[in-house]
Amino acid sequence: MAVGTLRFQSACTRFTSYAPAIGQRRFSPTLPLYRQSLHLAASFSCNAAQQQVQTSKEKQQKQETPPLQKAQKKGQQEGVTPRSQDFNMWYLDVIAAAELADYGPVRGTMVIRPYGYAIWEAIQSYLDAKFKETGHSNMYFPQFIPYSFIEKEASHVEGFSPELAVVTIGGGKELEEKLVVRPTSETIVNHMFTQWIHSYRDLPLKINQWVNVTRWEMRTKPFVRTLEFLWQEGHTGHATEEEAEEEALQLIEVYRKFAFDEAAIPVVVGRKSRLETFAGAVRTYTIEAMMGDRKALQAGTSHNLGQNFSRAFDTQFLDSQGEQQFIWQTSWAISTRMVGGVIMTHGDDMGLMLPPKLAPVQVIIIPIWKTDEEKETVLSAAVSVESLLKKEGVRTKLDASDQRTPGWKFNFWEMKGVPLRIEIGPRDVANNTVVVSRRDVPGKSGKMFGISMDPAELQSFIKSKLQEVQDNLLNIALAFRDSNIEDVGSFEELKAAITAGKWARGPWAGSDADETKIKEETGATIRCFPFEQPPHSGRCFMTENAAKEVAIFAKSY
Amino acid sequence: MAVGTLRFQSACTRFTSYAPAIGQRRFSPTLPLYRQSLHLAASFSCNAAQQQVQTSKEKQQKQETPPLQKAQKKGQQEGVTPRSQDFNMWYLDVIAAAELADYGPVRGTMVIRPYGYAIWEAIQSYLDAKFKETGHSNMYFPQFIPYSFIEKEASHVEGFSPELAVVTIGGGKELEEKLVVRPTSETIVNHMFTQWIHSYRDLPLKINQWVNVTRWEMRTKPFVRTLEFLWQEGHTGHATEEEAEEEALQLIEVYRKFAFDEAAIPVVVGRKSRLETFAGAVRTYTIEAMMGDRKALQAGTSHNLGQNFSRAFDTQFLDSQGEQQFIWQTSWAISTRMVGGVIMTHGDDMGLMLPPKLAPVQVIIIPIWKTDEEKETVLSAAVSVESLLKKEGVRTKLDASDQRTPGWKFNFWEMKGVPLRIEIGPRDVANNTVVVSRRDVPGKSGKMFGISMDPAELQSFIKSKLQEVQDNLLNIALAFRDSNIEDVGSFEELKAAITAGKWARGPWAGSDADETKIKEETGATIRCFPFEQPPHSGRCFMTENAAKEVAIFAKSY
Repeated sequence: MAVGTLRFQSACTRFTSYAPAIGQRRFSPTLPLYRQSLHLAASFSCNAAQQQVQTSKEKQQKQETPPLQKAQKKGQQEGVTPRSQDFNMWYLDVIAAAELADYGPVRGTMVIRPYGYAIWEAIQSYLDAKFKETGHSNMYFPQFIPYSFIEKEASHVEGFSPELAVVTIGGGKELEEKLVVRPTSETIVNHMFTQWIHSYRDLPLKINQWVNVTRWEMRTKPFVRTLEFLWQEGHTGHATEEEAEEEALQLIEVYRKFAFDEAAIPVVVGRKSRLETFAGAVRTYTIEAMMGDRKALQAGTSHNLGQNFSRAFDTQFLDSQGEQQFIWQTSWAISTRMVGGVIMTHGDDMGLMLPPKLAPVQVIIIPIWKTDEEKETVLSAAVSVESLLKKEGVRTKLDASDQRTPGWKFNFWEMKGVPLRIEIGPRDVANNTVVVSRRDVPGKSGKMFGISMDPAELQSFIKSKLQEVQDNLLNIALAFRDSNIEDVGSFEELKAAITAGKWARGPWAGSDADETKIKEETGATIRCFPFEQPPHSGRCFMTENAAKEVAIFAKSY
Repeated sequence: MAVGTLRFQSACTRFTSYAPAIGQRRFSPTLPLYRQSLHLAASFSCNAAQQQVQTSKEKQQKQETPPLQKAQKKGQQEGVTPRSQDFNMWYLDVIAAAELADYGPVRGTMVIRPYGYAIWEAIQSYLDAKFKETGHSNMYFPQFIPYSFIEKEASHVEGFSPELAVVTIGGGKELEEKLVVRPTSETIVNHMFTQWIHSYRDLPLKINQWVNVTRWEMRTKPFVRTLEFLWQEGHTGHATEEEAEEEALQLIEVYRKFAFDEAAIPVVVGRKSRLETFAGAVRTYTIEAMMGDRKALQAGTSHNLGQNFSRAFDTQFLDSQGEQQFIWQTSWAISTRMVGGVIMTHGDDMGLMLPPKLAPVQVIIIPIWKTDEEKETVLSAAVSVESLLKKEGVRTKLDASDQRTPGWKFNFWEMKGVPLRIEIGPRDVANNTVVVSRRDVPGKSGKMFGISMDPAELQSFIKSKLQEVQDNLLNIALAFRDSNIEDVGSFEELKAAITAGKWARGPWAGSDADETKIKEETGATIRCFPFEQPPHSGRCFMTENAAKEVAIFAKSY
């Protein structure tokens, strides 16, 4: 059963339980680069069941070098594995080479490096403002939850107990009651709501927190599924069922708009099937994103919790008629998984491609010179362009180092996914112009020559080009998505679509068992019943029962 | 030994191991309010050694009502315990009544409520910008640290091992290696630095993270010392000792400036004594704040770590001469403890008094009407004043509810520490004026009548008054601090000063044993060797040895 953002199983074919040996961080000249790179890919996608199987040769390799540092160097110097060649290896190469993340010393944990964290900060900055605009306040709940709390809501404990991290020792002593490190906070939130909410005047109560959460996942993949991850979790309490439903819908709309407008990811919004509903919710809404390999990524969820938690925690209020009632609740979350979604939606063979609104560096300036004299004039022009754009609020970086050639820098910042590049050479300075290149339009057709250095013209040109890149990324992803959703009228057609790597969409009125059968036979699950319903036959493609709506099936992360 | 921001012992005289029973949250009409309030105060300041001693009467009281909810209601309706009467109880009353925090279900944990969290957000917003301006990047390290890491640096393990929370179960299984929930991140940071840093070109490496940390404290007090708290921790690596020292000094200056300019807390900046230095540091710089009860609060620290961690973790780089060298490091932190410092510096008998720069609500607007007709005109004027000020970036709130009298609202928002109040009645509307009251100037002298409602005039008036309140709070605290530091020339004089509740300042060249003796006999510790050294005799007041500098002694939180 799915219980949250980061729950679905990923394919996992290789494994190394690599744990870096401190101080041993140099290259192994004896291991071919190809093998080293394979080795890297393996180290992230790991299956605990396989942890026991480890040859002595693998052990020996482990001692030689931490694979991610190697991949970082390889990716930066020779380029990443092309996406078209091996999507999974490309993903891991990009994360290493672009310095988005590294893995922590504990299996399945991740260090988010500055370039990756800056993407998360951009996500936070947009969403935090939206949450506040819609009347939510930030606060903080402790991360340690008494074990007994988790057990109060029946389906919640069923969903979460297999993946809990448990603190049993505090201050050197065995604890009387074990403490769960929060996997999500519904239980502790309800414990506190019960104390704060007395009358209908205390409602609605709308809060949010930006925190770390822990789920003992067996198959991990950086950003997509890690033992510990960062997210925001919103929690609200309402006097009526309708209000809670409105809230859950309002928040999934905030997420949808974020995905489209900021992340340039054309998510499909819809309702989860019963099997895929959050453990403890009445109804789960989701935004589902199609990755570059056409697998689905559940990128954000909003739950109508009904009265499930308020009944379990006795969270009651006195309504305006003087009657005691259980409150109606919602919860909703987006996590660092979204960073993985951005990588896997927009990247190409060269590496990362970041939507301008989330890019830590929107414009990279690369000065080009040969003589010392040229260097002086070129650098001086580059510095003024940099400060002009920064003043205009454009996230700009000047790469003025003389240890690398301009060509190396072009490749490096392309791999890092920077939306626009400005080149300034001696002739440009003489003409008072620059050359601007778009990351999203490959080769010469993405190059624009003779762009005026005049401050007013340049900044307006850059801003409009950033918007064009933003729009273009969304349109490309939208076309890709729509050309990879297939309408199906039978189980056979569904199987064919899934085998071809596509999403299948068809009228559905099957049972949980029918859904499970599809999962077992094809690996695909119901991603959602989309809000936008196409015309359909009205007959379930599986059971021939009357069907009110279509469902979308896909393999997923 | 002191090992960080939240380490010093607080006085602890009362205790109740209260754990709220779910659903039992109503008032007990049989328990006098005075007792209920005592009961509340007791519940926060707890000593684990006393946990065993608990009378059945206390147990019975526990069942009746969660004390903080009671104090919240009492404080909001009858006012908080006056500060002049009982500082500790006032502190807890204010936290409850102003809804700054609540305690979590696990002993010593704290829920930070929206009004308290908004103060923390204001602190974050200022500091985060300063860290970025000075070249630091945010990132995220996992919170689970292999137990073996903690043991690598000798004094670090000695300082931290008594207060660790330890995860021993993950995903339902006993873990092979126990995991520490981070009490601070030097060890895991060094583990990663060792992998990222190869040459002098990789230095300096300057990062920061905003995270939760856990220390199994026995005596807790909301904000001041809690089992889990929020902080930022900066970590840097440098090629030279001088650069690391400069960095440590630069950051303590960032903290000093923050304390003065934003929190209006006139901290004393200085160097810690050897005994009070962070576990693992060569040198610790500190900002020490004088609370309203004249106890010292260590409000932020910056550590020069030397090569202690780089040697323990083998973090080396190739210098420009091609030699392997250990890096030089710093770390520095400010935590949610600062919120406690703000409360205890500026509050008065009425409750909280917030410096405008950190106040979640800077201006509260209270409309006053009798008839429905008056209500309409008054509210319409109040709404335009509100939207004017909000547009100008002033954090403004309009309390338009008709369930409370204006008098009740005056008291409530005074207790919440809002710097400025705007009153608007029918006569004000007729005159196109408002009445403005300052929180920091009690009674009629703080009231300013006939302030024009003209947008340009009003917004500039409000802004300048907010700055006046900000400056006045700092000046009051500064005068208070300076009148409570006494220069001492002998141990006897020190004892007298400490007994009188003051800070003692005198030339010091004593040994660790001498320092310990003072602590044992007076309860005071060396807070710091202040950067601003007054003229002094040059003879240690304790040992008569030649003394180069004065130290400040005080009792502390």
